[in-house]
Amino acid sequence: MPNGAQALMKTLVDAGIEVCFTNPGTSEMHFVAALDSEPKMRAVLALFEGVATGAADGYARMADKPAATLLHLGCGLGNGLANLHNARKGKVPVVNIVGDHATYHVKYDAQLQSDIETVARNVSPGFVRTSQSTEALCQDAVEAIVTAKGLPGQVATLILPADVSWGEGGVPCAMPQQAPAQVADDSAVAAVVSAIQSGKKTAILLGGHGLREPSLQAAGRIAAHSKVKLFGECFPTRIERGAGLPPVERIAYLAELAGVQLADIEHLILVDCKAPVSFFAYPGKQSYLVPDGCTVHTLSTPEQDAAASLEKLAAALGASNAQPELQPAQRPGAPRGRLTAPKVCKAVGHYLPEDAIIVDEAITSGLMLNALTAGSPRHDMITLTGGAIGQGLPNAIGAAIACPERPVVALIGDGTAMYTNQALWTMAREQLNVTSIIFNNQSYSVLNIELERVGAEEVGPKAKSQLDLNGPVLNFAQLAQGMGVHGVRVSTAEEFNKALEYALSHPGPHLIEAMVPESMNGVKRKVLPWVLRSLPSLPLSLTRALKKKIAP
Amino acid sequence: MPNGAQALMKTLVDAGIEVCFTNPGTSEMHFVAALDSEPKMRAVLALFEGVATGAADGYARMADKPAATLLHLGCGLGNGLANLHNARKGKVPVVNIVGDHATYHVKYDAQLQSDIETVARNVSPGFVRTSQSTEALCQDAVEAIVTAKGLPGQVATLILPADVSWGEGGVPCAMPQQAPAQVADDSAVAAVVSAIQSGKKTAILLGGHGLREPSLQAAGRIAAHSKVKLFGECFPTRIERGAGLPPVERIAYLAELAGVQLADIEHLILVDCKAPVSFFAYPGKQSYLVPDGCTVHTLSTPEQDAAASLEKLAAALGASNAQPELQPAQRPGAPRGRLTAPKVCKAVGHYLPEDAIIVDEAITSGLMLNALTAGSPRHDMITLTGGAIGQGLPNAIGAAIACPERPVVALIGDGTAMYTNQALWTMAREQLNVTSIIFNNQSYSVLNIELERVGAEEVGPKAKSQLDLNGPVLNFAQLAQGMGVHGVRVSTAEEFNKALEYALSHPGPHLIEAMVPESMNGVKRKVLPWVLRSLPSLPLSLTRALKKKIAP
Repeated sequence: MPNGAQALMKTLVDAGIEVCFTNPGTSEMHFVAALDSEPKMRAVLALFEGVATGAADGYARMADKPAATLLHLGCGLGNGLANLHNARKGKVPVVNIVGDHATYHVKYDAQLQSDIETVARNVSPGFVRTSQSTEALCQDAVEAIVTAKGLPGQVATLILPADVSWGEGGVPCAMPQQAPAQVADDSAVAAVVSAIQSGKKTAILLGGHGLREPSLQAAGRIAAHSKVKLFGECFPTRIERGAGLPPVERIAYLAELAGVQLADIEHLILVDCKAPVSFFAYPGKQSYLVPDGCTVHTLSTPEQDAAASLEKLAAALGASNAQPELQPAQRPGAPRGRLTAPKVCKAVGHYLPEDAIIVDEAITSGLMLNALTAGSPRHDMITLTGGAIGQGLPNAIGAAIACPERPVVALIGDGTAMYTNQALWTMAREQLNVTSIIFNNQSYSVLNIELERVGAEEVGPKAKSQLDLNGPVLNFAQLAQGMGVHGVRVSTAEEFNKALEYALSHPGPHLIEAMVPESMNGVKRKVLPWVLRSLPSLPLSLTRALKKKIAP
Repeated sequence: MPNGAQALMKTLVDAGIEVCFTNPGTSEMHFVAALDSEPKMRAVLALFEGVATGAADGYARMADKPAATLLHLGCGLGNGLANLHNARKGKVPVVNIVGDHATYHVKYDAQLQSDIETVARNVSPGFVRTSQSTEALCQDAVEAIVTAKGLPGQVATLILPADVSWGEGGVPCAMPQQAPAQVADDSAVAAVVSAIQSGKKTAILLGGHGLREPSLQAAGRIAAHSKVKLFGECFPTRIERGAGLPPVERIAYLAELAGVQLADIEHLILVDCKAPVSFFAYPGKQSYLVPDGCTVHTLSTPEQDAAASLEKLAAALGASNAQPELQPAQRPGAPRGRLTAPKVCKAVGHYLPEDAIIVDEAITSGLMLNALTAGSPRHDMITLTGGAIGQGLPNAIGAAIACPERPVVALIGDGTAMYTNQALWTMAREQLNVTSIIFNNQSYSVLNIELERVGAEEVGPKAKSQLDLNGPVLNFAQLAQGMGVHGVRVSTAEEFNKALEYALSHPGPHLIEAMVPESMNGVKRKVLPWVLRSLPSLPLSLTRALKKKIAP
């Protein structure tokens, strides 16, 4: 009869969980020992828990099924919390296995004793359980997996005491059949049809699974048939885009810009998302971004099937056979001259291979990324769903493990890259096809913007020094090499192009450190402050307006 | 009238909090802007929250007063949680300022929204409060500081909504007088006197402030007068030691060894600590390390004044004028030949300057550190109080800022160094006098031991690969250089000696990467497993026994 850990391993694999991102300690040693009992389980070691949890997030976004994490007690979970927060906000399934002291050891309050359940509840509101016996362990695990894989996806946390793990008498369990997802009900569809047919200006805001191809095609048919505008949420968990797919305009990060986008909408229809709100609050500005007088309708909730709901709406509108507008194939030219952040984005748009996965955590440096990759070959894009920076490099690991045949291009700000820089080592160890592009602008550039936006304009040298990352200037090429990743530092567009071509044509991980000026330098701040302060998801229409305004 | 942030800044400085370790985001921008309003406040930027919290911990251990941290919402707190756990377990005062969304923004559940209070409660059981108004903010802060600075020291968390920070009408508050600490009461002293005079074998176990000089001198007098053995707790928050101070034998990490140390003790007297328990549970082994039949007495609790309680006991015993045994000055010779972890410790013992601060997170590589530095010039040693690795480099930052005139030598395992490697950048930015010694043995060496200790002996290749850190081998010298720290890699004792001499004689941060064999290599595991599995605090007496047994 297997011990608890061995039975758990079999239960996980039988449920389709075949990857575990690990950072184990003593209390997880029996789980580690059990890895060899299941040939289907792949264990991927991370040097920091935030890498493991971010990798599990990225994996599930691309594999459409959860990975497991293996974490060491409450402190290990704490280290992984920020990227679990991002997964939770993105409705991404993750199954955490958090090792704990043996049940009888808890009362001694040893050094690593802490309240794991309380910490876990923050990111796993739907399932936190400390397994109480070896016999019950696998049933607990099945319930965790069912919760994680439900609609919407969730982070589930199973706490595994060491004696439950090492105890004899584990009983592997099988997954129950999961009920099919519900479709938008008739009354919701009827209300939306009536709004669309009202003659008032109507938009559909797509989030979650609404940004995957089946939903996009259905939404595209509706848009073409009924002249409805399509928006995408600001920070998608995963959006399928590029040449040949229906394009959507993402809501901008900045409330000022989002306000422009939504200004004349009279009916806003939500699909797998909530009504847009400002990322932060600012003195004297609205938090809720839906304009006064606009009626909000929910076609389908995150608990429902977005694509089927959109198909049902299309049918009700008679739009099932409409031809959606599709994004034409068009790439920008290769950039030339002194390197800037927009030129990096341009090069990415120029060279992006077929079927790539873009991980976007470029923050201010990614201002033009959306526009400059819009007509590149079809690809997926993963974004910062929960706002906790340090997501991108770990996400790239997970995406590359989920899709080993697809190139992953991760665009990461210098500040954000440092949070989970240990990810580079795992990329090297697993020889993942990830090209990490680090924008080294020697600044928390976004905070320079935010400092002004919150109204704290008169700042002294101590405040300013909190936002700059020079003195010393980080050298990411050296950091990469120190972790076994091929790294180069470039400062012209020609060098960047060459480095990107090289990285995309040579297997394994690469890092390109793009030395770029601070994003806001040289910009007439008082002329176009609200436009230029935008963050990753600048929509096409606004980009065009911006280009006209900036053009000399 | 100042805004909330400005009034808070004044309140902090007036309460003696003059250093803030920061990793701010948008919601903290008014606090950042207020930094320039208080010339006495020093803001030290960290690139990751775990560095900020670990630095605050190290600072307070050496400054004997708290620093503040500045963290960004629940995710920033999460990233800082592990080192706050270490501070909590070490009873170290820390005042967290955690920025939050504006109070009215919370209901919109924006991307970074999470339950900060719940996460904070884990490390701040004594004080978690979300300040509700600008008017109340400074009084809230004073209560947080009072809690933090109490006896025992605590982590206190003040959550600062953005609108409370930017609101006008802040009212700086002054600290109240804090009551003097209580001394052990007469009945406790009488019981301990009676135990000591019983003729049975008695030991005093010193923890917390019991390991600082005034307590050590008093305990040393008692030991000399009454033939009582002195133990120190396994992982001291701060221990003063070296030539000229009364030495204590620290309880070993391994239950097997601790059992030997405590075997014949019939009365165990606790000063500012609890009775020793095993770090982890192991199948078939005791968690509680006090032998059957040994009576445990508490002279003073962590709420009481350890030194005054020991003085009271000494007086009751008539030992006030006894001469304590003092550690004679004696240094090991400089090591020669191929580098090993014990040779690194030997070099540290040989070269350690006067009045140094040793930060010990060397894990298995520090096996001989205690023995080989015992007679070095007087120094302080800081250890891993809560078991959450990644403490050492951040602690070194805080210690160096608290004591700018004292050299800091941090001994760190390769696995642990990676958790908070971003600390190196802050050391460079602040030009701190820290010499970081990284033991690169390409392994989570301690887990190789623990895997065997928990009884999971038959392990396959997947399990083993979870514990090795090669493929690729990390290059810490390169990582240091990438963050602006002078770094060298050495593989002979002569090279190490030279690098250490250089580092100790040149100001600013240095990193020495010691390439050493995996600690357990070449050891006859089955002959002396329980001895050789020891961790940092191998006591002198056991070291001697060990040397005899190992000697060919």
